[in-house]
Amino acid sequence: MQVTLVYVKVKPGHVEEFVEATRKNHEGSIKEPGNICFEICQSVEDPCSFVFYEAFKTPEDVAAHKTTAHYLAWRKVADPIMAETRRGVAYNRLYPK
Amino acid sequence: MQVTLVYVKVKPGHVEEFVEATRKNHEGSIKEPGNICFEICQSVEDPCSFVFYEAFKTPEDVAAHKTTAHYLAWRKVADPIMAETRRGVAYNRLYPK
Repeated sequence: MQVTLVYVKVKPGHVEEFVEATRKNHEGSIKEPGNICFEICQSVEDPCSFVFYEAFKTPEDVAAHKTTAHYLAWRKVADPIMAETRRGVAYNRLYPK
Repeated sequence: MQVTLVYVKVKPGHVEEFVEATRKNHEGSIKEPGNICFEICQSVEDPCSFVFYEAFKTPEDVAAHKTTAHYLAWRKVADPIMAETRRGVAYNRLYPK
């Protein structure tokens, strides 16, 4: 299983817009056949900082996610309002199996 | 819902020992009534780096976790083999609700 932690920092004043676009991306992503979870978390300390906890069955499912309409629509809204380039870190989930 | 990302870096040569202790902590934690998930991920790039994705219902459930026998047993094994002090970052999970 492929887990990616995606760190996003949003420009001040754009948090609501970002959350709304991300909600739509979440709703589309969890319907993808290769998706296991797609959780959206907001930092308690800094409401402009977010992390996505994404799990997909295979690397092909991760690649397929990036071609979906909901992902591309999210990028269109989110890219211009990010305070810095988002960062993805790849993990293997050990537990639960 | 309280989400914490816990970052742990383990001394080289101690990864198997750490994973075994963490598996036991995972198995105990998911049986706690206030636990929602307790996922253990290992970095693809650096097998000595781990992140725990932990969710509990309330702050009281987080506090209760830290008094359990499985948590204290994990600390006893894990603390001496960490390469640096572990770091927890608190989040609110927005989606799924």
